[in-house]
Amino acid sequence: MDKFMQAAVEEARMGLAEGGIPIGSVIVHQGEIIGRGHNRRIQKGSTTLHGEMDALENAGRQKASVYRECTLYTTLSPCPMCSGAILLYGIPKVVIGENQTFMGDEDLLRSRGVELTVLDNADCIQLMTDFIRDQPELWNEDIGE
Amino acid sequence: MDKFMQAAVEEARMGLAEGGIPIGSVIVHQGEIIGRGHNRRIQKGSTTLHGEMDALENAGRQKASVYRECTLYTTLSPCPMCSGAILLYGIPKVVIGENQTFMGDEDLLRSRGVELTVLDNADCIQLMTDFIRDQPELWNEDIGE
Repeated sequence: MDKFMQAAVEEARMGLAEGGIPIGSVIVHQGEIIGRGHNRRIQKGSTTLHGEMDALENAGRQKASVYRECTLYTTLSPCPMCSGAILLYGIPKVVIGENQTFMGDEDLLRSRGVELTVLDNADCIQLMTDFIRDQPELWNEDIGE
Repeated sequence: MDKFMQAAVEEARMGLAEGGIPIGSVIVHQGEIIGRGHNRRIQKGSTTLHGEMDALENAGRQKASVYRECTLYTTLSPCPMCSGAILLYGIPKVVIGENQTFMGDEDLLRSRGVELTVLDNADCIQLMTDFIRDQPELWNEDIGE
């Protein structure tokens, strides 16, 4: 696995170890991770810190010119909120671990010119398959269902 | 002015008094404000806590059935990130103070069935007109430009 997706998976596993939802994300600029994070719904009672949002938050305030050169890695297809954040900051490339357990707003991202790569990664699929089986109510809450 | 938009404007003014970007929001369920907030970019160095996101965060973890009965009030047209959050949680109605100083992703929201009301409120317009004039770099940063 690509080292950046590996870092996103490590974030997802950290979240799981904390009792949280196992979705992780990293933001990469010029070959360096500038922000990393994981879903914090359970840990912080947060309704906005999905993995991608947590990575964006931890990257801190960046110039538009930086975002325009970033790639966001996420273990799971980005939901409408995280897709909107990607559009707000003009992040041009997103690498997605998998979209089999949840299909995010990929069509919207593509329609606005974001380049998506979907890996169908087995570790990412397993993390979410197990979590959704074990904690279906938490998962539904996280996606507004 | 409607008392809920008045509360959102109060939030915006609180943000301004803190040295922040004057955008406020409240979320209303069955006639009660269940979450209120304002943009926290400056105050917390936050890239994700726009006014609407801060209100969602402060509303805490709610059931999908609650979000489905909510109206979100915001002093400014919601950007792609905040529009995505509205879609994620299935909030059906959004009341917007103004969209003259910034046009958010209103077309996307309408295309997904969200009911929008735009007030063209003079106080909301003044707050943003003054802020954009005085702090154009901060404002551009907030909208990813």
